[in-house]
Amino acid sequence: MLAEIKGLNEECGVFGIWGHPEAAQITYYGLHSLQHRGQEGAGIVTTDGDKLTCMKGLGLVNEVFGNGKLNELSGKAAIGHVRYATAGGGGYENVQPLLFKSSHSGSLALAHNGNLVNATQVKHQLESQGSIFQTTSDTEVLAHLIRRSGHIDMKEAVKNALTMVKGAYAFLIMTETELMVALDPNGLRPLSIGVMGDAYVVASETCAFDVVGAKFERDVQPGELLIINDEGIRSERFSMNINRAMCSMEYIYFSRPDSNIDGVNVHTARKNLGKRLAVESEIDADVVTGVPDSSISAAIGFAELTGIPYELGLIKNRYVGRTFIQPSQALREQGVKMKLSAVRGVVEGKRVVMVDDSIVRGTTSRRIVNLLREAGATEVHVRISSPPIANPCFYGIDTSTHEELIAANHSVEEIRQIIGADSLAFLSVEGLLEGIGRPYEGEFKGQCLACFTGRYPTEIYPDTVLPHEKV
Amino acid sequence: MLAEIKGLNEECGVFGIWGHPEAAQITYYGLHSLQHRGQEGAGIVTTDGDKLTCMKGLGLVNEVFGNGKLNELSGKAAIGHVRYATAGGGGYENVQPLLFKSSHSGSLALAHNGNLVNATQVKHQLESQGSIFQTTSDTEVLAHLIRRSGHIDMKEAVKNALTMVKGAYAFLIMTETELMVALDPNGLRPLSIGVMGDAYVVASETCAFDVVGAKFERDVQPGELLIINDEGIRSERFSMNINRAMCSMEYIYFSRPDSNIDGVNVHTARKNLGKRLAVESEIDADVVTGVPDSSISAAIGFAELTGIPYELGLIKNRYVGRTFIQPSQALREQGVKMKLSAVRGVVEGKRVVMVDDSIVRGTTSRRIVNLLREAGATEVHVRISSPPIANPCFYGIDTSTHEELIAANHSVEEIRQIIGADSLAFLSVEGLLEGIGRPYEGEFKGQCLACFTGRYPTEIYPDTVLPHEKV
Amino acid sequence: MLAEIKGLNEECGVFGIWGHPEAAQITYYGLHSLQHRGQEGAGIVTTDGDKLTCMKGLGLVNEVFGNGKLNELSGKAAIGHVRYATAGGGGYENVQPLLFKSSHSGSLALAHNGNLVNATQVKHQLESQGSIFQTTSDTEVLAHLIRRSGHIDMKEAVKNALTMVKGAYAFLIMTETELMVALDPNGLRPLSIGVMGDAYVVASETCAFDVVGAKFERDVQPGELLIINDEGIRSERFSMNINRAMCSMEYIYFSRPDSNIDGVNVHTARKNLGKRLAVESEIDADVVTGVPDSSISAAIGFAELTGIPYELGLIKNRYVGRTFIQPSQALREQGVKMKLSAVRGVVEGKRVVMVDDSIVRGTTSRRIVNLLREAGATEVHVRISSPPIANPCFYGIDTSTHEELIAANHSVEEIRQIIGADSLAFLSVEGLLEGIGRPYEGEFKGQCLACFTGRYPTEIYPDTVLPHEKV
Amino acid sequence: MLAEIKGLNEECGVFGIWGHPEAAQITYYGLHSLQHRGQEGAGIVTTDGDKLTCMKGLGLVNEVFGNGKLNELSGKAAIGHVRYATAGGGGYENVQPLLFKSSHSGSLALAHNGNLVNATQVKHQLESQGSIFQTTSDTEVLAHLIRRSGHIDMKEAVKNALTMVKGAYAFLIMTETELMVALDPNGLRPLSIGVMGDAYVVASETCAFDVVGAKFERDVQPGELLIINDEGIRSERFSMNINRAMCSMEYIYFSRPDSNIDGVNVHTARKNLGKRLAVESEIDADVVTGVPDSSISAAIGFAELTGIPYELGLIKNRYVGRTFIQPSQALREQGVKMKLSAVRGVVEGKRVVMVDDSIVRGTTSRRIVNLLREAGATEVHVRISSPPIANPCFYGIDTSTHEELIAANHSVEEIRQIIGADSLAFLSVEGLLEGIGRPYEGEFKGQCLACFTGRYPTEIYPDTVLPHEKV
Repeated sequence: MLAEIKGLNEECGVFGIWGHPEAAQITYYGLHSLQHRGQEGAGIVTTDGDKLTCMKGLGLVNEVFGNGKLNELSGKAAIGHVRYATAGGGGYENVQPLLFKSSHSGSLALAHNGNLVNATQVKHQLESQGSIFQTTSDTEVLAHLIRRSGHIDMKEAVKNALTMVKGAYAFLIMTETELMVALDPNGLRPLSIGVMGDAYVVASETCAFDVVGAKFERDVQPGELLIINDEGIRSERFSMNINRAMCSMEYIYFSRPDSNIDGVNVHTARKNLGKRLAVESEIDADVVTGVPDSSISAAIGFAELTGIPYELGLIKNRYVGRTFIQPSQALREQGVKMKLSAVRGVVEGKRVVMVDDSIVRGTTSRRIVNLLREAGATEVHVRISSPPIANPCFYGIDTSTHEELIAANHSVEEIRQIIGADSLAFLSVEGLLEGIGRPYEGEFKGQCLACFTGRYPTEIYPDTVLPHEKV
Repeated sequence: MLAEIKGLNEECGVFGIWGHPEAAQITYYGLHSLQHRGQEGAGIVTTDGDKLTCMKGLGLVNEVFGNGKLNELSGKAAIGHVRYATAGGGGYENVQPLLFKSSHSGSLALAHNGNLVNATQVKHQLESQGSIFQTTSDTEVLAHLIRRSGHIDMKEAVKNALTMVKGAYAFLIMTETELMVALDPNGLRPLSIGVMGDAYVVASETCAFDVVGAKFERDVQPGELLIINDEGIRSERFSMNINRAMCSMEYIYFSRPDSNIDGVNVHTARKNLGKRLAVESEIDADVVTGVPDSSISAAIGFAELTGIPYELGLIKNRYVGRTFIQPSQALREQGVKMKLSAVRGVVEGKRVVMVDDSIVRGTTSRRIVNLLREAGATEVHVRISSPPIANPCFYGIDTSTHEELIAANHSVEEIRQIIGADSLAFLSVEGLLEGIGRPYEGEFKGQCLACFTGRYPTEIYPDTVLPHEKV
Repeated sequence: MLAEIKGLNEECGVFGIWGHPEAAQITYYGLHSLQHRGQEGAGIVTTDGDKLTCMKGLGLVNEVFGNGKLNELSGKAAIGHVRYATAGGGGYENVQPLLFKSSHSGSLALAHNGNLVNATQVKHQLESQGSIFQTTSDTEVLAHLIRRSGHIDMKEAVKNALTMVKGAYAFLIMTETELMVALDPNGLRPLSIGVMGDAYVVASETCAFDVVGAKFERDVQPGELLIINDEGIRSERFSMNINRAMCSMEYIYFSRPDSNIDGVNVHTARKNLGKRLAVESEIDADVVTGVPDSSISAAIGFAELTGIPYELGLIKNRYVGRTFIQPSQALREQGVKMKLSAVRGVVEGKRVVMVDDSIVRGTTSRRIVNLLREAGATEVHVRISSPPIANPCFYGIDTSTHEELIAANHSVEEIRQIIGADSLAFLSVEGLLEGIGRPYEGEFKGQCLACFTGRYPTEIYPDTVLPHEKV
Repeated sequence: MLAEIKGLNEECGVFGIWGHPEAAQITYYGLHSLQHRGQEGAGIVTTDGDKLTCMKGLGLVNEVFGNGKLNELSGKAAIGHVRYATAGGGGYENVQPLLFKSSHSGSLALAHNGNLVNATQVKHQLESQGSIFQTTSDTEVLAHLIRRSGHIDMKEAVKNALTMVKGAYAFLIMTETELMVALDPNGLRPLSIGVMGDAYVVASETCAFDVVGAKFERDVQPGELLIINDEGIRSERFSMNINRAMCSMEYIYFSRPDSNIDGVNVHTARKNLGKRLAVESEIDADVVTGVPDSSISAAIGFAELTGIPYELGLIKNRYVGRTFIQPSQALREQGVKMKLSAVRGVVEGKRVVMVDDSIVRGTTSRRIVNLLREAGATEVHVRISSPPIANPCFYGIDTSTHEELIAANHSVEEIRQIIGADSLAFLSVEGLLEGIGRPYEGEFKGQCLACFTGRYPTEIYPDTVLPHEKV
């Protein structure tokens, strides 16, 4: 919901399991715990060793699989997917997993989190060879590459196909008899494996393991291909060109606070970012408040370090659903608010530090600063627990185009004026790296910082399109 | 949602407006901000000066009034109601406002928050005089009393009827030409009035005023009857037997943190309760966490006073809707969780203070203590920011029967063992009164404490029924 | 559906059963067979001897009771109701049966087919005595009268109440332990009883008996009150002022062709009307066609007597549902048609006799004549198997007001010109009586002919309102 | 609906238009008039000259495009499709038109009525070349063939692809700038073109032209490819091996009575079949009745020729929708009926001729004979207006397998005994050909009679699958 406010949208979440009699049910709960990664659609494909069965639809996990429909999905293994909410485009066709049935060579189901940067080129090439596409999704590209690889052995076909796609991807690929799991050579998206009795599970975030009662085993490594079947699990490499660059926004904004990424707890990382921010940009104030939900941890950290009391200065309405009626322009001007309310009893007459995790277009920040002033705040100091986002993301996060990014076009002082704050400070890139505190060396220190620095860990092609530009 | 977990359910919320061209829209937003007070059904009645129009239905405010249906409600004034979720009973018939059409004496719409303690008796009496009832709601009783009062003047008829009902009530009564607002002589339920340009608004909580852009004017007084029409607003008394006893659970649990009740901000009151609790029951620990959402403020206060860091140790899943599929017994035992997750990265290896606002049946507390232990907490100290609930509520809060209340049947030490905590402490009644800090003298110090002390501010009749016992 | 086209709407249909373990299911199928009598809403109330349970909703029987909801209705007896589709007004509140719960004197469920002519007066009187009304339905009036009768014995209370209402009614009245069935002293609405093993059934039309596998026993008599309970069935009289006047439109238009009314099969009656019509208004033509569905029987009779071949010259689209999208004005002018199509292959170059059962406002007739001409008919001769409707109905059929009735304001020749026919003839009143052929003597010969003749079998009050005038 | 009873299901219906500003609306009404050809799903693709837009879904045309959704489909041209109801399989993926988007060579939308007999083989071949399939529909095969043809010119690519598929097909193929229309060399499925001002329309049945106000131009010829674009219409041949064999069941059962196929009106053809049947199998009886809706015309013809009165002896319930609740076994045995009722008032004590259009499995016939006997018929003589169906259909009609066809396994006398009729007669093949009366010479006399004679007009491959056998 708040995602809509901010203009930051995650692409997707994936979950898979092999070797459990209630595979579809487990996947349902797993997807449910990943619902924050995508609300537009959801799907599950199961295998009973013999046949793949697919169910998917537009809407929340609850809506797609409610009313007993889940019972139609039997089998010992499953993969599932939640898809993000985008304004235009999309629709049912793009809901994943995609299922490709073949009359003689077995079926293939694919679920993908991420974004390929050379999808357009590969697609052109495939089409000139006679391939036809029914979706605008990158995943379909991989399916064609697998089928056309010429390899009879499925594993080799997949490895071969993976070498031809560039960008960010966590792939789950399931046939009647195998589950394959692949992560791109930069490890741009989180992906972990766990165990649950005799079953293996795989998920975009570790919170899914806690929810289904599985035990975290380890993170999938960049460039790794895992093959899971009734004989067990096998790890192979499909690329030697490894350079870890985990998406920083996963720590800052997207992932659930109870997930661990690469061994670092997300809530703790955010709290540390808040502390670093407090060190970097001191301010004298009466109360600290965070923009719910994603900035709460950073705000707590900020308050803890500065000793300024942490308060619930902003309240999010939990009942703003998709059918919510927008107020008319007249009512909006009269002050009808939804989604977020400032707590007058807390901020009236106070100097407020408002901690937020990021600024994308600036419109939300301006609105919140305004809310706080209307509720009586005498000063509003905005502190952002990440550096300015000045570059678009090509790896699966819908951060808007270059033109819309306020930090791509304005100085910090200009942004302060635009959003109407008394002061404004962003966290530094160094502060970000140290706050997260992962032990990586090398070119990117283990983090993708492209949206802040413009240094992309992969090649970017002239026709690489942003997710929301696809139709 | 959590309400369901806990077994504590608010009865309702009401909102009214007189003198605004978009009365129904404003009421919609007002009800939306009161949605936490009732999720089973919602309704709005408008008047255009000539005719009352009603729309209501089962479901959330969004669902009942979505798809353009709101536009069918025109008029300059409106009253609305949200109704709480109860297991059995209920259904469409009991969704409010109730509308009574009369062919010769004008129509009457009623919305009610609270519970009457002599409804059964009055109903018996009315039925023996030939009245027939279509609902099981107390509100219908008041309508009959008004119509049978013999007074031709509506205001006198209402005042007369009000003297015959006992218990807790905030009533909105609307005819074609007038809006009447009444609060019971103990002021058991919150009710405030505000202004919005030339219009008057009235709401169960002040958060509704902030959301619609209205200015808070004052709280409705116990025993007060307000008459609002095109000429303005008039205040009268219908009872001289005033003894303020505001429901304590409104501060502790029900109201939104951004509401002010009787001049006291709810979040601030809760934070103070957390501080008092910390003073009363010290503990040495590593982290403080609150049970979301209602206990967050108290946990912050507890952390602030003790200096123990406040952390997000428990996460609530925002997407648990009504259609959520419950895991099978087998899966539940395997550890499939929903709604609430413990954050392993925060609690593992830590001594945890878990602050909660209340314990009703104890089952939820036991489950949460268990969650924390499974996530690696070495000690779990439960601190409750209210006294033990040992008596049922007859005034509109569905606290379960005497048999189900754990504190009615067990000592604190027994409860500690049942929920499996390393230590357990409740706030004292004095701590509660001081924490809230309202300036009342007199028998009840301005607060209803009946659920803690058993001293009810009104007479209780032998056949007074709990809300969930009605069929 | 066609009802909408024509502007003729039946009020309702009722079904009841006593003494069957699957009472609700049987009632569901019974109501389903009466669906043509009302499509706006449906409801069922069951009793298990101890408690009445109600389920109702807007929509078709299928929609209201689908998805397993029917299983919630247990008990050995039930009454049900289907309600007609009216433009404005209505809504959930008026869906029947109405259920009145009483805390000390037992509950009461009522289902009503018909219309009371003195409802407004009785309501006024009741309101002046303090009664309040939640619906605009006449049924609620009867409930008040029963409760206020002063009689402790239910049967006496009902008889007393029935003497106070005037007009057309078939009432089903159910308490926890009894089913009462009453028909007005003129027997204006059809109502029959049957047996089904040990159970008794009652229905608006005998087609319901065939559908549920019950055996027709006899028609309920005008002024009769039947009391059915676990001891059996008992017949009493509540009025001595009997004068049978069965609604003629039931034969002509409303009832299902497979129903028998007063011993006369509806299809056969219609076919006879078609034959009489052929005798009264001969014409030389090539084909006979009927307007589906209600005029098919008359058309067959017309063809049979004249020897002119009967053909399917008009086809009704079976899939025109409530969500059907109306064509824009531009498309309508271009000729986009729905609901009804003329069969070019049948009427092209032919002189066509178009048999219809009635003309209300004339707009539909004009449209159908036009359809036939566009499809190539060289002549269109309209034959109506009933007399001109020149007077409104106050007994439960929504025939529009006096102003809208074309035959109230125009001669036959004028109507012919308005609808654009080459010739037009109506059946005579004598032809109608003979065609139906019921063996009654007396003032009305057993038939209500008021809409044709203006002679109403009951008193009509100055403030008697037409059904669609209620709000 | 009755289709379900009988076990005969049409595959689909198609509609297309080029050159009208309200193309989607027109297509909606066109599809609506073809709804009897398929009720499982519906879809429309429009082009605005630049981009193809698709909307489709499961359900009736009304349901898929209701609630204003149609407005999202803009453009000057459109193709649409209705899909038949099959028990298993199917689902959203197979709803047509299928849309294939290409990033560099333009998009392609396809709608198909019919069934290919060599789909399995072609699919195998394509898959071995790397093609992947997302649906089980034959249409996807054609899309692959078009894309892989190697021809740059779209028209040539389509012609080339058409030569590779065998079986029955009416194809609509739309790109951004062209609408192509193709009919198989045997012309097994009906397909006609019409004009509507400057626009061209194409439809499976001519009834669609009458509904949208278009003028019938001519039938599409077997082996013809029409290319329609902004310059006009062009006709080409893609096969020289023409041998007309129109599906006989279109005349007998499927098409709407108001459609003309190959110049012959369907109602008239059916009436003639009824007359021929009367000549071939005389019988002495009191009434003739037809099984609604498809056998009404034949029954009228039978009655007309014999002079036995035609009556409505069987009534179909119009409100049996998809959500209808099936009676339990116990209730079914007690006689609860739905869908079809016998009219006791018509058949009691009579010798009844029951005319039906066909017998597939015999179960429906047995049930209807039984219905008539229960309603009092003294004799039931069944007359079938087509020859015995003894062979499965591979061309798009779901007639069940060989094992299920009663006439494939039993003599006429055996069938008579099974269905419990007093006498039974089928129409002869010669009677069928003469009754329809089309002026064709040659091998098949213009009609496909394969289901009666076993002589299929195309080759049948060992792995040709029946429609309902696809998964």
